[in-house]
Amino acid sequence: MNNLERLWAIEEIKQLKARYFRYLDTKKFQDLRQVFSADAVFDVSDAMRDPVTGTPPGAIEIPRMSGLENIVAGIAEVLGSAQSVHHGHMAEIDVTSLGTATGIWSMEDIVLTDEFQLRGYGHYHETYEKTAEGWRIKTLKLTRLRATVEQANRQD
Amino acid sequence: MNNLERLWAIEEIKQLKARYFRYLDTKKFQDLRQVFSADAVFDVSDAMRDPVTGTPPGAIEIPRMSGLENIVAGIAEVLGSAQSVHHGHMAEIDVTSLGTATGIWSMEDIVLTDEFQLRGYGHYHETYEKTAEGWRIKTLKLTRLRATVEQANRQD
Amino acid sequence: MNNLERLWAIEEIKQLKARYFRYLDTKKFQDLRQVFSADAVFDVSDAMRDPVTGTPPGAIEIPRMSGLENIVAGIAEVLGSAQSVHHGHMAEIDVTSLGTATGIWSMEDIVLTDEFQLRGYGHYHETYEKTAEGWRIKTLKLTRLRATVEQANRQD
Repeated sequence: MNNLERLWAIEEIKQLKARYFRYLDTKKFQDLRQVFSADAVFDVSDAMRDPVTGTPPGAIEIPRMSGLENIVAGIAEVLGSAQSVHHGHMAEIDVTSLGTATGIWSMEDIVLTDEFQLRGYGHYHETYEKTAEGWRIKTLKLTRLRATVEQANRQD
Repeated sequence: MNNLERLWAIEEIKQLKARYFRYLDTKKFQDLRQVFSADAVFDVSDAMRDPVTGTPPGAIEIPRMSGLENIVAGIAEVLGSAQSVHHGHMAEIDVTSLGTATGIWSMEDIVLTDEFQLRGYGHYHETYEKTAEGWRIKTLKLTRLRATVEQANRQD
Repeated sequence: MNNLERLWAIEEIKQLKARYFRYLDTKKFQDLRQVFSADAVFDVSDAMRDPVTGTPPGAIEIPRMSGLENIVAGIAEVLGSAQSVHHGHMAEIDVTSLGTATGIWSMEDIVLTDEFQLRGYGHYHETYEKTAEGWRIKTLKLTRLRATVEQANRQD
Protein backbone atom coordinates (compact mmCIF):
# COMPACT_ATOMS: atom_id res chain seq x y z
CA MET A 1 0.00 0.00 0.00
CA ASN A 2 1.13 3.53 -0.62
CA ASN A 3 0.45 6.56 1.56
CA LEU A 4 -2.50 7.73 -0.55
CA GLU A 5 -4.21 4.36 -0.13
CA ARG A 6 -3.52 4.49 3.60
CA LEU A 7 -4.89 8.02 3.95
CA TRP A 8 -8.02 7.13 2.03
CA ALA A 9 -8.61 4.06 4.21
CA ILE A 10 -8.07 6.16 7.35
CA GLU A 11 -10.64 8.72 6.15
CA GLU A 12 -13.14 5.99 5.32
CA ILE A 13 -12.70 4.44 8.77
CA LYS A 14 -13.08 7.82 10.47
CA GLN A 15 -16.36 8.33 8.64
CA LEU A 16 -17.45 4.78 9.53
CA LYS A 17 -16.90 5.59 13.20
CA ALA A 18 -18.69 8.93 12.76
CA ARG A 19 -21.75 7.10 11.43
CA TYR A 20 -21.55 4.67 14.36
CA PHE A 21 -21.79 7.56 16.83
CA ARG A 22 -24.47 9.42 14.89
CA TYR A 23 -26.69 6.34 14.48
CA LEU A 24 -26.34 5.56 18.21
CA ASP A 25 -27.38 8.99 19.39
CA THR A 26 -30.10 9.63 16.79
CA LYS A 27 -31.46 6.12 17.45
CA LYS A 28 -31.06 4.91 13.88
CA PHE A 29 -30.39 1.46 15.23
CA GLN A 30 -31.18 -0.37 11.98
CA ASP A 31 -28.52 1.69 10.23
CA LEU A 32 -25.98 0.24 12.67
CA ARG A 33 -26.28 -2.96 10.62
CA GLN A 34 -24.08 -1.21 8.01
CA VAL A 35 -21.43 -0.37 10.61
CA PHE A 36 -20.45 -3.76 12.03
CA SER A 37 -19.15 -6.90 10.34
CA ALA A 38 -21.36 -9.99 10.58
CA ASP A 39 -19.15 -11.63 13.21
CA ALA A 40 -18.36 -8.45 15.16
CA VAL A 41 -17.52 -8.52 18.87
CA PHE A 42 -18.74 -5.59 20.97
CA ASP A 43 -17.46 -5.24 24.52
CA VAL A 44 -18.51 -2.24 26.61
CA SER A 45 -18.75 -4.32 29.78
CA ASP A 46 -16.53 -1.76 31.54
CA ALA A 47 -18.79 1.16 30.54
CA MET A 48 -20.05 1.73 34.08
CA ARG A 49 -16.86 0.81 35.93
CA ASP A 50 -14.75 3.68 37.20
CA PRO A 51 -11.08 2.67 37.40
CA VAL A 52 -10.57 4.57 40.67
CA THR A 53 -13.82 4.10 42.55
CA GLY A 54 -15.01 0.81 41.04
CA THR A 55 -18.53 0.08 39.90
CA PRO A 56 -20.74 2.80 41.35
CA PRO A 57 -24.28 2.39 42.70
CA GLY A 58 -26.90 2.52 39.97
CA ALA A 59 -24.69 0.88 37.37
CA ILE A 60 -26.17 -1.80 35.14
CA GLU A 61 -24.43 -4.76 33.55
CA ILE A 62 -23.84 -4.64 29.80
CA PRO A 63 -22.59 -8.05 28.69
CA ARG A 64 -20.03 -8.60 25.94
CA MET A 65 -21.96 -9.28 22.73
CA SER A 66 -21.00 -10.99 19.49
CA GLY A 67 -22.67 -11.14 16.10
CA LEU A 68 -24.24 -8.25 14.21
CA GLU A 69 -27.84 -9.02 15.18
CA ASN A 70 -27.08 -9.42 18.88
CA ILE A 71 -25.07 -6.21 18.96
CA VAL A 72 -27.72 -4.09 17.23
CA ALA A 73 -30.46 -5.53 19.46
CA GLY A 74 -28.36 -5.02 22.57
CA ILE A 75 -27.57 -1.39 21.74
CA ALA A 76 -31.22 -0.68 20.96
CA GLU A 77 -32.24 -2.15 24.31
CA VAL A 78 -29.85 0.05 26.33
CA LEU A 79 -30.22 3.27 24.33
CA GLY A 80 -33.74 2.98 22.88
CA SER A 81 -35.37 5.12 25.56
CA ALA A 82 -32.25 7.04 26.62
CA GLN A 83 -31.01 10.48 25.76
CA SER A 84 -27.39 9.88 24.75
CA VAL A 85 -24.34 11.70 23.44
CA HIS A 86 -21.22 9.82 22.29
CA HIS A 87 -18.16 11.69 21.03
CA GLY A 88 -14.92 10.29 19.63
CA HIS A 89 -11.60 12.09 19.50
CA MET A 90 -7.98 11.74 18.47
CA ALA A 91 -8.06 8.68 16.21
CA GLU A 92 -5.00 6.47 15.98
CA ILE A 93 -5.83 4.38 12.88
CA ASP A 94 -3.20 1.93 11.65
CA VAL A 95 -3.98 0.38 8.27
CA THR A 96 -2.32 -3.01 8.55
CA SER A 97 -3.25 -4.27 5.06
CA LEU A 98 -5.55 -3.39 2.18
CA GLY A 99 -8.42 -5.00 4.10
CA THR A 100 -7.54 -4.71 7.80
CA ALA A 101 -6.88 -1.92 10.26
CA THR A 102 -6.71 -1.18 13.98
CA GLY A 103 -7.81 1.94 15.82
CA ILE A 104 -7.77 3.64 19.19
CA TRP A 105 -10.18 6.49 19.90
CA SER A 106 -10.49 8.71 22.91
CA MET A 107 -14.15 9.11 23.88
CA GLU A 108 -16.73 10.76 26.10
CA ASP A 109 -20.32 9.71 26.60
CA ILE A 110 -23.47 10.80 28.35
CA VAL A 111 -26.34 8.35 28.76
CA LEU A 112 -29.48 9.51 30.57
CA THR A 113 -32.31 7.11 31.31
CA ASP A 114 -35.11 6.97 33.85
CA GLU A 115 -32.92 4.69 35.99
CA PHE A 116 -29.44 6.20 35.76
CA GLN A 117 -27.29 9.05 34.48
CA LEU A 118 -23.89 8.00 33.14
CA ARG A 119 -21.01 10.28 32.26
CA GLY A 120 -17.92 8.50 31.07
CA TYR A 121 -14.52 9.00 29.50
CA GLY A 122 -12.18 6.42 28.03
CA HIS A 123 -10.85 4.76 24.92
CA TYR A 124 -12.20 2.49 22.25
CA HIS A 125 -9.78 -0.18 21.06
CA GLU A 126 -10.99 -1.45 17.71
CA THR A 127 -10.24 -3.55 14.67
CA TYR A 128 -11.75 -3.06 11.23
CA GLU A 129 -12.11 -5.13 8.10
CA LYS A 130 -12.97 -4.12 4.57
CA THR A 131 -15.90 -6.07 3.16
CA ALA A 132 -17.46 -5.89 -0.31
CA GLU A 133 -19.68 -3.11 1.09
CA GLY A 134 -16.84 -1.12 2.65
CA TRP A 135 -15.07 -0.89 6.00
CA ARG A 136 -16.78 -2.39 9.03
CA ILE A 137 -16.04 -2.50 12.77
CA LYS A 138 -14.96 -6.05 13.58
CA THR A 139 -14.14 -5.71 17.27
CA LEU A 140 -14.78 -2.92 19.77
CA LYS A 141 -13.55 -2.82 23.36
CA LEU A 142 -14.18 0.13 25.67
CA THR A 143 -11.81 0.96 28.53
CA ARG A 144 -12.52 3.71 31.02
CA LEU A 145 -10.49 6.61 32.38
CA ARG A 146 -13.43 7.79 34.46
CA ALA A 147 -17.11 7.04 34.87
CA THR A 148 -19.79 8.41 37.15
CA VAL A 149 -23.25 6.92 37.50
CA GLU A 150 -26.09 8.52 39.37
CA GLN A 151 -29.49 7.09 40.10
CA ALA A 152 -31.61 10.05 39.18
CA ASN A 153 -34.35 11.30 36.94
CA ARG A 154 -33.59 12.61 33.50
CA GLN A 155 -34.57 16.24 34.06
CA ASP A 156 -31.86 17.41 36.42
CA MET B 1 -11.90 14.07 -8.89
CA ASN B 2 -9.40 11.57 -7.59
CA ASN B 3 -8.95 10.49 -3.97
CA LEU B 4 -6.03 12.86 -3.40
CA GLU B 5 -8.13 15.83 -4.50
CA ARG B 6 -10.96 14.65 -2.26
CA LEU B 7 -8.67 14.21 0.76
CA TRP B 8 -7.17 17.65 0.26
CA ALA B 9 -10.62 19.25 0.02
CA ILE B 10 -11.72 17.37 3.19
CA GLU B 11 -8.66 18.65 5.07
CA GLU B 12 -9.27 22.21 3.88
CA ILE B 13 -12.91 22.04 4.98
CA LYS B 14 -11.91 20.62 8.37
CA GLN B 15 -9.55 23.55 8.89
CA LEU B 16 -12.26 25.98 7.71
CA LYS B 17 -14.57 24.60 10.40
CA ALA B 18 -11.74 24.75 12.96
CA ARG B 19 -11.29 28.46 12.24
CA TYR B 20 -15.05 28.96 12.54
CA PHE B 21 -14.98 27.53 16.08
CA ARG B 22 -11.81 29.34 17.09
CA TYR B 23 -13.00 32.73 15.84
CA LEU B 24 -16.33 32.25 17.67
CA ASP B 25 -14.78 31.46 21.01
CA THR B 26 -11.91 33.94 20.86
CA LYS B 27 -14.35 36.63 19.68
CA LYS B 28 -12.56 37.32 16.40
CA PHE B 29 -15.90 38.08 14.83
CA GLN B 30 -14.51 40.05 11.90
CA ASP B 31 -12.45 37.02 10.91
CA LEU B 32 -15.71 35.09 10.54
CA ARG B 33 -16.18 37.06 7.31
CA GLN B 34 -13.59 34.72 5.78
CA VAL B 35 -15.52 31.64 6.88
CA PHE B 36 -18.95 32.10 5.29
CA SER B 37 -19.98 32.61 1.68
CA ALA B 38 -21.67 35.91 0.83
CA ASP B 39 -25.12 34.32 0.61
CA ALA B 40 -24.68 31.92 3.52
CA VAL B 41 -27.65 30.70 5.57
CA PHE B 42 -27.08 30.16 9.30
CA ASP B 43 -29.75 28.39 11.31
CA VAL B 44 -29.17 27.65 15.01
CA SER B 45 -32.79 28.36 15.89
CA ASP B 46 -32.92 25.01 17.72
CA ALA B 47 -29.85 25.84 19.82
CA MET B 48 -31.83 26.18 23.05
CA ARG B 49 -34.45 23.54 22.36
CA ASP B 50 -34.00 20.20 24.10
CA PRO B 51 -35.57 17.40 22.02
CA VAL B 52 -36.86 15.63 25.14
CA THR B 53 -37.91 18.43 27.48
CA GLY B 54 -38.64 21.18 24.93
CA THR B 55 -37.48 24.76 25.22
CA PRO B 56 -36.36 25.28 28.81
CA PRO B 57 -36.89 28.41 30.93
CA GLY B 58 -34.25 31.04 30.32
CA ALA B 59 -33.84 30.22 26.65
CA ILE B 60 -33.62 33.03 24.12
CA GLU B 61 -34.67 33.05 20.48
CA ILE B 62 -31.95 32.99 17.84
CA PRO B 63 -33.56 33.57 14.46
CA ARG B 64 -32.42 31.95 11.22
CA MET B 65 -30.06 34.40 9.51
CA SER B 66 -28.96 34.80 5.90
CA GLY B 67 -26.20 36.82 4.29
CA LEU B 68 -22.64 37.16 5.53
CA GLU B 69 -23.10 40.54 7.20
CA ASN B 70 -26.25 39.54 9.06
CA ILE B 71 -24.67 36.31 10.26
CA VAL B 72 -21.49 37.93 11.56
CA ALA B 73 -23.49 40.68 13.28
CA GLY B 74 -25.90 38.16 14.78
CA ILE B 75 -23.13 35.95 16.15
CA ALA B 76 -21.33 38.96 17.62
CA GLU B 77 -24.54 40.04 19.34
CA VAL B 78 -25.13 36.67 21.03
CA LEU B 79 -21.50 35.85 21.88
CA GLY B 80 -19.90 39.28 22.23
CA SER B 81 -20.16 39.40 26.00
CA ALA B 82 -20.38 35.63 26.59
CA GLN B 83 -17.80 33.09 27.67
CA SER B 84 -18.20 30.33 25.10
CA VAL B 85 -16.70 26.99 24.08
CA HIS B 86 -17.70 25.26 20.84
CA HIS B 87 -16.23 21.88 19.89
CA GLY B 88 -16.74 19.85 16.73
CA HIS B 89 -16.18 16.13 16.37
CA MET B 90 -16.39 13.23 13.93
CA ALA B 91 -16.66 14.99 10.57
CA GLU B 92 -18.53 13.33 7.75
CA ILE B 93 -17.41 15.42 4.77
CA ASP B 94 -18.61 14.37 1.32
CA VAL B 95 -16.93 16.23 -1.55
CA THR B 96 -19.66 16.26 -4.18
CA SER B 97 -17.69 18.13 -6.87
CA LEU B 98 -14.52 20.18 -7.24
CA GLY B 99 -16.36 23.16 -5.78
CA THR B 100 -19.11 21.73 -3.55
CA ALA B 101 -19.27 19.55 -0.45
CA THR B 102 -21.59 18.55 2.39
CA GLY B 103 -20.73 17.87 6.00
CA ILE B 104 -22.14 16.58 9.26
CA TRP B 105 -20.35 17.34 12.53
CA SER B 106 -21.10 16.20 16.03
CA MET B 107 -20.80 19.11 18.45
CA GLU B 108 -20.85 20.31 22.04
CA ASP B 109 -21.14 23.89 23.23
CA ILE B 110 -21.10 25.94 26.38
CA VAL B 111 -22.36 29.53 26.34
CA LEU B 112 -22.30 31.51 29.58
CA THR B 113 -23.80 34.99 29.77
CA ASP B 114 -25.17 37.15 32.53
CA GLU B 115 -28.67 35.94 31.58
CA PHE B 116 -28.29 32.23 30.91
CA GLN B 117 -25.97 29.24 30.93
CA LEU B 118 -26.34 26.90 27.97
CA ARG B 119 -24.83 23.45 27.59
CA GLY B 120 -25.74 21.69 24.40
CA TYR B 121 -24.96 18.69 22.23
CA GLY B 122 -26.01 18.00 18.67
CA HIS B 123 -25.04 17.99 15.03
CA TYR B 124 -24.23 20.60 12.43
CA HIS B 125 -25.56 19.82 8.95
CA GLU B 126 -23.63 21.93 6.48
CA THR B 127 -22.88 22.63 2.85
CA TYR B 128 -19.71 24.22 1.53
CA GLU B 129 -18.66 25.90 -1.67
CA LYS B 130 -15.22 26.71 -3.01
CA THR B 131 -14.79 30.36 -3.92
CA ALA B 132 -11.80 32.15 -5.41
CA GLU B 133 -10.61 32.65 -1.81
CA GLY B 134 -11.06 29.04 -0.76
CA TRP B 135 -13.77 26.90 0.86
CA ARG B 136 -16.61 28.67 2.63
CA ILE B 137 -19.60 27.54 4.73
CA LYS B 138 -22.68 28.07 2.56
CA THR B 139 -25.38 26.67 4.85
CA LEU B 140 -25.30 25.62 8.50
CA LYS B 141 -28.16 24.01 10.40
CA LEU B 142 -27.85 22.91 14.03
CA THR B 143 -29.92 20.04 15.43
CA ARG B 144 -29.88 19.09 19.09
CA LEU B 145 -29.47 15.81 20.94
CA ARG B 146 -29.65 17.57 24.28
CA ALA B 147 -29.64 21.11 25.64
CA THR B 148 -29.90 22.53 29.12
CA VAL B 149 -30.38 26.21 29.89
CA GLU B 150 -30.15 27.71 33.33
CA GLN B 151 -30.91 31.26 34.38
CA ALA B 152 -27.88 31.91 36.50
CA ASN B 153 -24.87 34.09 36.96
CA ARG B 154 -21.64 33.28 35.20
CA GLN B 155 -19.55 32.39 38.24
CA ASP B 156 -21.23 29.20 39.42
CA MET C 1 6.17 19.50 -0.96
CA ASN C 2 3.08 18.22 -2.70
CA ASN C 3 -0.37 17.79 -1.19
CA LEU C 4 0.11 14.07 -0.56
CA GLU C 5 3.27 14.75 1.46
CA ARG C 6 1.42 17.45 3.39
CA LEU C 7 -1.56 15.21 4.11
CA TRP C 8 0.71 12.42 5.31
CA ALA C 9 2.60 14.78 7.60
CA ILE C 10 -0.68 16.13 8.98
CA GLU C 11 -1.90 12.60 9.72
CA GLU C 12 1.39 11.70 11.42
CA ILE C 13 1.21 14.84 13.57
CA LYS C 14 -2.42 14.13 14.50
CA GLN C 15 -1.41 10.66 15.66
CA LEU C 16 1.57 12.12 17.55
CA LYS C 17 -0.82 14.39 19.44
CA ALA C 18 -3.20 11.48 20.02
CA ARG C 19 -0.39 9.50 21.65
CA TYR C 20 0.48 12.56 23.77
CA PHE C 21 -3.06 12.65 25.17
CA ARG C 22 -3.32 8.89 25.63
CA TYR C 23 0.02 8.59 27.42
CA LEU C 24 -0.94 11.49 29.72
CA ASP C 25 -4.25 10.02 30.79
CA THR C 26 -3.15 6.38 31.02
CA LYS C 27 -0.05 7.48 32.95
CA LYS C 28 2.45 6.07 30.46
CA PHE C 29 4.79 8.88 31.34
CA GLN C 30 7.92 7.17 30.05
CA ASP C 31 6.29 6.87 26.62
CA LEU C 32 6.02 10.66 26.56
CA ARG C 33 9.76 10.63 25.88
CA GLN C 34 8.88 9.62 22.30
CA VAL C 35 6.48 12.57 21.93
CA PHE C 36 8.68 15.60 22.62
CA SER C 37 11.88 16.79 20.99
CA ALA C 38 14.96 16.91 23.20
CA ASP C 39 14.83 20.70 23.53
CA ALA C 40 11.05 20.98 23.76
CA VAL C 41 9.37 23.87 25.60
CA PHE C 42 6.13 23.09 27.47
CA ASP C 43 4.06 25.96 28.81
CA VAL C 44 0.76 25.25 30.54
CA SER C 45 1.31 28.00 33.10
CA ASP C 46 -2.17 29.37 32.26
CA ALA C 47 -3.84 25.99 32.86
CA MET C 48 -5.59 27.14 36.02
CA ARG C 49 -6.22 30.73 35.03
CA ASP C 50 -9.73 31.59 33.90
CA PRO C 51 -9.67 34.51 31.45
CA VAL C 52 -12.84 36.03 32.96
CA THR C 53 -12.55 35.34 36.67
CA GLY C 54 -8.76 35.12 37.02
CA THR C 55 -6.93 32.45 38.95
CA PRO C 56 -9.48 30.73 41.16
CA PRO C 57 -8.94 29.49 44.73
CA GLY C 58 -7.38 26.07 44.87
CA ALA C 59 -5.27 26.58 41.77
CA ILE C 60 -1.64 25.47 41.76
CA GLU C 61 1.28 26.90 39.85
CA ILE C 62 2.63 24.90 36.92
CA PRO C 63 5.85 26.54 35.74
CA ARG C 64 6.96 26.71 32.12
CA MET C 65 9.31 23.78 31.52
CA SER C 66 12.01 23.14 28.94
CA GLY C 67 13.93 20.02 27.97
CA LEU C 68 12.49 16.55 27.47
CA GLU C 69 13.51 15.19 30.89
CA ASN C 70 12.15 18.17 32.81
CA ILE C 71 8.85 18.05 30.92
CA VAL C 72 8.27 14.34 31.45
CA ALA C 73 9.17 14.62 35.14
CA GLY C 74 6.96 17.68 35.57
CA ILE C 75 3.95 16.04 33.92
CA ALA C 76 4.41 12.89 36.02
CA GLU C 77 4.49 14.99 39.18
CA VAL C 78 1.20 16.79 38.42
CA LEU C 79 -0.70 13.84 36.93
CA GLY C 80 0.90 10.84 38.62
CA SER C 81 -1.77 10.48 41.30
CA ALA C 82 -4.57 12.29 39.42
CA GLN C 83 -7.51 11.01 37.45
CA SER C 84 -7.29 12.96 34.20
CA VAL C 85 -8.97 13.28 30.82
CA HIS C 86 -7.48 15.40 28.02
CA HIS C 87 -9.24 15.74 24.68
CA GLY C 88 -8.08 17.55 21.55
CA HIS C 89 -10.32 18.79 18.75
CA MET C 90 -10.33 20.62 15.42
CA ALA C 91 -6.66 20.52 14.44
CA GLU C 92 -5.25 23.33 12.32
CA ILE C 93 -1.93 21.81 11.19
CA ASP C 94 0.20 23.83 8.78
CA VAL C 95 3.16 21.92 7.36
CA THR C 96 5.68 24.68 6.78
CA SER C 97 8.47 22.49 5.36
CA LEU C 98 9.40 18.82 5.05
CA GLY C 99 10.59 18.90 8.65
CA THR C 100 8.60 21.64 10.40
CA ALA C 101 4.95 22.34 11.14
CA THR C 102 2.69 24.44 13.34
CA GLY C 103 -0.59 23.47 14.93
CA ILE C 104 -3.53 24.85 16.88
CA TRP C 105 -5.84 22.46 18.74
CA SER C 106 -9.00 23.14 20.63
CA MET C 107 -9.00 21.23 23.91
CA GLU C 108 -10.87 20.22 27.06
CA ASP C 109 -9.40 18.71 30.19
CA ILE C 110 -10.44 17.31 33.52
CA VAL C 111 -7.85 16.83 36.27
CA LEU C 112 -9.00 15.42 39.61
CA THR C 113 -6.61 15.15 42.54
CA ASP C 114 -6.98 15.00 46.29
CA GLU C 115 -6.32 18.75 46.39
CA PHE C 116 -8.28 20.18 43.46
CA GLN C 117 -10.68 19.48 40.63
CA LEU C 118 -9.89 21.28 37.40
CA ARG C 119 -12.15 21.55 34.35
CA GLY C 120 -10.72 23.59 31.53
CA TYR C 121 -11.20 24.57 27.91
CA GLY C 122 -8.80 26.29 25.57
CA HIS C 123 -6.31 25.95 22.76
CA TYR C 124 -2.87 24.43 22.33
CA HIS C 125 -0.53 26.44 20.13
CA GLU C 126 2.26 24.14 19.01
CA THR C 127 5.23 23.67 16.75
CA TYR C 128 6.58 20.35 15.55
CA GLU C 129 9.78 19.10 14.04
CA LYS C 130 10.58 15.90 12.22
CA THR C 131 13.49 14.01 13.72
CA ALA C 132 15.13 10.78 12.58
CA GLU C 133 12.55 8.98 14.76
CA GLY C 134 9.56 10.88 13.38
CA TRP C 135 7.56 13.98 14.25
CA ARG C 136 7.95 15.46 17.72
CA ILE C 137 6.32 18.31 19.66
CA LYS C 138 8.89 21.11 19.88
CA THR C 139 6.85 23.78 21.65
CA LEU C 140 3.46 23.66 23.37
CA LYS C 141 1.61 26.65 24.81
CA LEU C 142 -1.85 26.37 26.38
CA THR C 143 -4.27 29.29 26.38
CA ARG C 144 -7.61 29.16 28.17
CA LEU C 145 -11.15 30.02 27.16
CA ARG C 146 -12.46 28.91 30.54
CA ALA C 147 -11.21 27.12 33.63
CA THR C 148 -12.83 26.22 36.92
CA VAL C 149 -10.94 24.89 39.91
CA GLU C 150 -12.56 23.52 43.03
CA GLN C 151 -10.91 22.46 46.24
CA ALA C 152 -12.68 19.18 46.79
CA ASN C 153 -12.31 15.48 47.17
CA ARG C 154 -12.19 13.25 44.13
CA GLN C 155 -15.46 11.36 44.67
CA ASP C 156 -18.05 14.08 44.13
